[in-house]
Amino acid sequence: MGSTVKRLAVLGSTGSIGQQTLQVVRALPNRFRIVGLAAGKNVDLLERQIKEFNPKFVYYQDRKTNLANAECEFLSLEDIARHPEVDMVVIATSGKAGLSPTLAAAKAGKNIALANKESLVMAGEIVTGEAELNGAQILPIDSEHSAIWQCLDGETQKSARLILTASGGPFLHYSPAQLNKVTVEQALRHPSWLMGKKVTIDSATLMNKGLEVIEARWLFKTPFKNIKVLIHPQSIIHSMVEFVDGSIKAQLSCPDMRLPIQYALSYPERLPNPELPRINWGDISSLTFESPEFDTFPCLKLAIEAGEKGETYPTVLCAADEVAVELFLSQRIKFTDIANLVEQALTLHRAIAHPALEEIMAADAWAREKVLQLAGDNL
Amino acid sequence: MGSTVKRLAVLGSTGSIGQQTLQVVRALPNRFRIVGLAAGKNVDLLERQIKEFNPKFVYYQDRKTNLANAECEFLSLEDIARHPEVDMVVIATSGKAGLSPTLAAAKAGKNIALANKESLVMAGEIVTGEAELNGAQILPIDSEHSAIWQCLDGETQKSARLILTASGGPFLHYSPAQLNKVTVEQALRHPSWLMGKKVTIDSATLMNKGLEVIEARWLFKTPFKNIKVLIHPQSIIHSMVEFVDGSIKAQLSCPDMRLPIQYALSYPERLPNPELPRINWGDISSLTFESPEFDTFPCLKLAIEAGEKGETYPTVLCAADEVAVELFLSQRIKFTDIANLVEQALTLHRAIAHPALEEIMAADAWAREKVLQLAGDNL
Repeated sequence: MGSTVKRLAVLGSTGSIGQQTLQVVRALPNRFRIVGLAAGKNVDLLERQIKEFNPKFVYYQDRKTNLANAECEFLSLEDIARHPEVDMVVIATSGKAGLSPTLAAAKAGKNIALANKESLVMAGEIVTGEAELNGAQILPIDSEHSAIWQCLDGETQKSARLILTASGGPFLHYSPAQLNKVTVEQALRHPSWLMGKKVTIDSATLMNKGLEVIEARWLFKTPFKNIKVLIHPQSIIHSMVEFVDGSIKAQLSCPDMRLPIQYALSYPERLPNPELPRINWGDISSLTFESPEFDTFPCLKLAIEAGEKGETYPTVLCAADEVAVELFLSQRIKFTDIANLVEQALTLHRAIAHPALEEIMAADAWAREKVLQLAGDNL
Repeated sequence: MGSTVKRLAVLGSTGSIGQQTLQVVRALPNRFRIVGLAAGKNVDLLERQIKEFNPKFVYYQDRKTNLANAECEFLSLEDIARHPEVDMVVIATSGKAGLSPTLAAAKAGKNIALANKESLVMAGEIVTGEAELNGAQILPIDSEHSAIWQCLDGETQKSARLILTASGGPFLHYSPAQLNKVTVEQALRHPSWLMGKKVTIDSATLMNKGLEVIEARWLFKTPFKNIKVLIHPQSIIHSMVEFVDGSIKAQLSCPDMRLPIQYALSYPERLPNPELPRINWGDISSLTFESPEFDTFPCLKLAIEAGEKGETYPTVLCAADEVAVELFLSQRIKFTDIANLVEQALTLHRAIAHPALEEIMAADAWAREKVLQLAGDNL
């Protein structure tokens, strides 16, 4: 197969992004080889993936479970991420579990295909600092950041205004009163993207877009004032970049995560893949745009404010949101309580400037406990 | 001012593109200096331009006219285009008059900012061949080709599908019966672009888009089957490129020719210019797309067919169209006769394969005479 085969470790292989990463690898078997797989609790699916891809290294959360027929070496997430036989680490885990292996990969100078938002939101300064120091390249998998990256590629001047598009989620144009009554089932019904539950709820609150603004700030070293959010319900334009001369570049495609995943895996090449859908212009009569409703969707504003304040505020934002979304999914709080709880946690937080990793983890733990406590008081 | 000042010759400085080029230079005086100006008959405006920009070299059609206060050297278009003191030649002349200086600039290895369609349509093989041989770079000024060029820049693979957008002109959705009755005044009222008369009429017949397809074939070495035309009435997306992985890049801006002009002049840099308008997303509620009506606008089909057949057919297309548009502008033929005359000229033409420049010029002369003769028969 020769030297053009990239050896991949997929951390979070049983999740939505992980499974779609494996679909891309399956479609391009001569270009990629899976050498590492890591999952949380879905051991059944992991066993099937191990059987199909025969990785050398594997991780799963509950080591007491015995995997049938698995002859691979059990390693920690961090040891897989920094292993010399791994060319690229795909961080497809959701939540703060992605941070430690991302940091391990950055320190080892690996190419990192990053789908995990929390790594950059919680520890953007540390992660991008380590990546630069050790020559690790961070290749975004989020469709918005992939779009911006594609638009910036080849440009000599990187100073530009970023326009992150947002579908607006299932509750676009809802009034606050309507939002107050939405159910878990409604919130999980995203109009254009197929994603995991946490991201789907974050899309409905627009928290997801807020986290992406913070990510974009770190990935593209762009000040917050030069990052704009634009509602674009068709999810065809995945984001845009406005350059100093007023020219704008946009990246368009069908809303399918396999494209940004494949672009991160194959960069700087683009590979033909007949399984990827193509835009049929006959189906697209109109692309529309509008400004987001910051008052109706306070999570977007909370996220941008936390990003601007920096310190440990983005960590508290992330952690508070993660717990609040879990509480909503288990029907213990209302949809609109997600923003309320996050806001209360941010207000109560005593932030630490330039936090070390332990301080970030402490802020994370504090926020989780605080939200549970606040929710308990309210229940 | 130092070595960063680019010395420009603007051929066709009194036309629409020429004047807008000088507006860009006026806004960025530390980056560009005008060393050559050339015009046709508008000597009054040329005199004012000479006074303002103080060029070293000048050309105008009727040398017998004496320019007041002009201390510059009179040179031919070709001698200006290849002059050692010229860094970049802006070919802003319309019609076949642009071909010879374009070729002179290509042979001299100059950077050529090209707004003249005929150079590539009539002699694409010769012009691009000479440019490659002599290291001349052709930088397109047409908004569509500028958009494609911006989208391709930085991509490692150049094989891609080009999507040229077209406003559709003032007669979008007209029936053939309605088209039969349109007046010169209506045809000159373009909905989104400010351009010269010839280009405005060509936009109304969609001949302009057909010529652009042929230009794109030469500029980007793309086979005709990979060039698609898409009607986009808002003229915000100026064209797009679809890559092998299905990802599409688009370039967007307000419809203002100064942006593609400036990009060609400043490439590979982008320069801030407060005079260039910026898209206000609050003003853009919707971008729409539809397929062109090839039967109602036969010029588009005629152009693509002539381009595919090659040889001297594109020259005949260009020449026949130029004469037919003049006949329409002087109200001697109907709007729909433009396509009829071009089609008849193409049908009657005996083409020459791999034509030399003289054969191209002969085909041009033949087509002009033939259209006048055909029109005379019909009048």
